[in-house]
Formats: sequence, structure tokens, C-alpha cells
Amino acid sequence: MAKEYKAAMIVIGSEILSGRTKDENINYVAGKLVARGIELSEVRVIPDDEGVIIDSVNDLKGRFDYVFTSGGIGPTHDDITALSVAKAFGVKLEINQSVYELLKNEYIGGDFTQASVKMAMLPENAELIPNPLSAAPGFIIENVYVMAGVPIIMHRMMDYVADIIIGGDIVLSRSVSCSFGESRIAKELADIQDAFPNVDIGSYPHFKDGEKGVGIVLRSINENDLNKAEQSVLDMVKSKL
Amino acid sequence: MAKEYKAAMIVIGSEILSGRTKDENINYVAGKLVARGIELSEVRVIPDDEGVIIDSVNDLKGRFDYVFTSGGIGPTHDDITALSVAKAFGVKLEINQSVYELLKNEYIGGDFTQASVKMAMLPENAELIPNPLSAAPGFIIENVYVMAGVPIIMHRMMDYVADIIIGGDIVLSRSVSCSFGESRIAKELADIQDAFPNVDIGSYPHFKDGEKGVGIVLRSINENDLNKAEQSVLDMVKSKL
Repeated sequence: MAKEYKAAMIVIGSEILSGRTKDENINYVAGKLVARGIELSEVRVIPDDEGVIIDSVNDLKGRFDYVFTSGGIGPTHDDITALSVAKAFGVKLEINQSVYELLKNEYIGGDFTQASVKMAMLPENAELIPNPLSAAPGFIIENVYVMAGVPIIMHRMMDYVADIIIGGDIVLSRSVSCSFGESRIAKELADIQDAFPNVDIGSYPHFKDGEKGVGIVLRSINENDLNKAEQSVLDMVKSKL
Repeated sequence: MAKEYKAAMIVIGSEILSGRTKDENINYVAGKLVARGIELSEVRVIPDDEGVIIDSVNDLKGRFDYVFTSGGIGPTHDDITALSVAKAFGVKLEINQSVYELLKNEYIGGDFTQASVKMAMLPENAELIPNPLSAAPGFIIENVYVMAGVPIIMHRMMDYVADIIIGGDIVLSRSVSCSFGESRIAKELADIQDAFPNVDIGSYPHFKDGEKGVGIVLRSINENDLNKAEQSVLDMVKSKL
């Protein structure tokens, strides 16, 4: 059996906790990881607070194969991710000369300030994650991948990261919908789950215009078992109509 | 000075970690808490896994005034939130007779099954959170508020909860936009932050059609300081045009 890869994500963003901004990165990261055979096991949304960032990075980097962060790598006073991650690893933050040159060419005139230089300050020996939109890169240190918070930039960084990380077997999925409540099929669904222990079966109710419905999602790395479990669910749903 | 209230949220949802579903509850809870003078300090998205739910509830209920959960309170085999929360508190799960009667009246014929009864199984002495849409209630045990995952139901439960919980001073906010990059104002913004320590100043860049812009958000419970800090930011932004 192939190694299973598990990941955590840290969304560094006081603006999400205050309700000002809706996160647009978790779902993107989740989708990219599924496609690479990596299980996203936990997401934390935390404030721009050095102590909390350090604790979260230290806790999660030891427990998961990969940790992805979004947010807090810009030039302003509230951008403290790079410094906090360096502290979590006990390494120095230093000017990366190639990033400095890159930013100097990108930020012209009044836009190249002492603050811009902050975006060239990276943990020593960090590997860069390119930023095709606004130059200032993300970075990789050991198993921690530090990316921007602005969604259009974050997504391009995650595209790059998804291409270079190592994943495991791809989890395949099937989905079956029906237009009655969960209670009617709960027992039979549990029996099918018991019969196929290596297929994960989830049941997701929805309500639309007062009508109940359920989406049943089956996930497995074993296509044969997945097909059999799907057929069992389809037969069961038909028997309830 | 009034007591400050801090909260955490636990999103219980394998479907969000797998990328199948986009969370629609974090932002709603965040907005409701801000309006009640409660700071949302951390959000965790975790799988439908008993051990992880128990650990998360136990960790967060001790560290925050309130813990809000969403997801996993339906009738199917993957709905394990009520049982896990009961275990976290070391209390029994038992049939709540009034909920049983409620569900029996709501779920008619083939829809009232052994599985429906599961939704009447609550931790002993739990207080109910009404569900105006599909009857099965959420519940409160000590400082933990357990709610549905389906957004339209979750939001109605959160409306109820927001009305009954105790909050602190309301955090007021102001926002100033400008259409240039963060680097140009970063130093001055840091100086304003230093001058107003009880105002939280956040800087949120955005990129649209290749153009840079920044949203500067000021937050404080002190309206007088907030107004002064806002004026400083406005003056500073004008000086940079």
C-alpha cells in the first residue's frame, strides 16, 4: 500500500475572523490536494498574532506531511507571517538578494520603499514560491509552504506548489442524489458503510424551497470497491422511491 | 473596562476538507459575533472523526468563553457530533422526550425511523437550540453551542444563539480605500498604528485588472480614538496622491 499523505492549512487572517472578508482559499487548496492524492486533515483560521502563528506552525508541522499557510506576507506592519515562521523554525530572517532585485525592478519610484524590502526578508535557506502577479514570492521551509492571502495570488502559488509536492494514491469519488430526507435511508446507508470499510460514505442533506434532499458521496482509492458500493447505494435509493 | 469575550468555532465537515463543499458558516458566525461584542479568535475545520472532535472541543472550551460548532447532527452514520460532544464532557447521551415527540410529528410515515430517533439523542441536561426549518434541534452544553451544518439551518440557529449569549463592548470599524500599492503607505501606517495602540489597523491589498489597491480597516471599542486614527489615515493617504 502506498504511503498516505496528510496536510494541514493555516489561514492567517484577522480579517476573516472579524467577518470582513470571506475566505476564498480553503476550498481551492482542498481541491488541489485531493487531485494530488493528499488528504487535507485540518484547517485553522487564526489572527495575525505572532505567538498564535508560531504555536500553530509548530503544532501542525510535526503532525502532518505538509502545512500550507495563506496570508500575512505583504509589506505592512500587520504582515508578520515570515518573521513568525522563521521563529517557529528557530532560523534567522534575512534579505534574499534575488528577491530584493526582483522587487526593485517591479516596484518603481515611490513604490519601492523600506517596506517593500520587508517582502525580501525570508527565513534563511527558504525556497521561493513564485508570484506571477505582484512579484513578492511565497516560500518553503522544510514541510511548510507559506503563501499570499489575496486569493488570485494565493491560487497561482498553490498551482505551483501542487505541481512540485509528492502525493499518494488519488482518492476517487462518486455521488448519488435523492430527493427525500436522510432519515429514510440512514440505516441502509450505515449497513453499506459497514460492508465497504475502505469506502468513505458521507451523507449531506440540503433544503431547497422547503424540499428535502440528500447528496451521498462515496470516496475511496479502490475503484473496484467504490463501484460496488455505488451500485449498492443506487439500488437502495431506488428501493425507497 | 468591560470584560472581553472570546470565542472559537469548530466546523465539523469532511466534505469541506475534501473540497466538495465550500463553507458558508464561518463568515456568518463571525459577523454575528462582531455585532455582539465577541471576538472570534480561532476557527478549526476538522473531519467527522470522534477523537478529533473530542480533542478539539476539550482544547477550545477551556480556552475561550464560547465554542460554536457546525455540522454532524443529522441522522446518518457519519453524524457523530452529539455523541462526541457528550464524550468530551463525560456525560451520557440520552433520548430527549420533547425532541422525540417533535420529530415524531415532523417526520411522517417512512421518514420517522430509528435513524430519526438518533436526532433526539442529546447529552443529558443539554439546552435546545430551535430549528425552525427541519425540527431537529441543536443544543447547548456549558459554553459549547452545537449547531447544524446546512447553512440555511445553521444561520437560523446562530441568530437564536446570538440573541441569548452575553457579549462585551461592540468593536466599531472604519475603512479607507486607496488605489496604490501597500509599500507606499506601509511606514506611515505603522506609525499611525504606534500612535493609536487601542485601534487595530489592518491593511488588505487587492488586485483587479492588474491594478493595485489597498483597503485599510481600523477597529476599536473606543470611538474617539477610532475617529482620530481614521483622520490620520485619510490625511496620510491624501498626502500620497
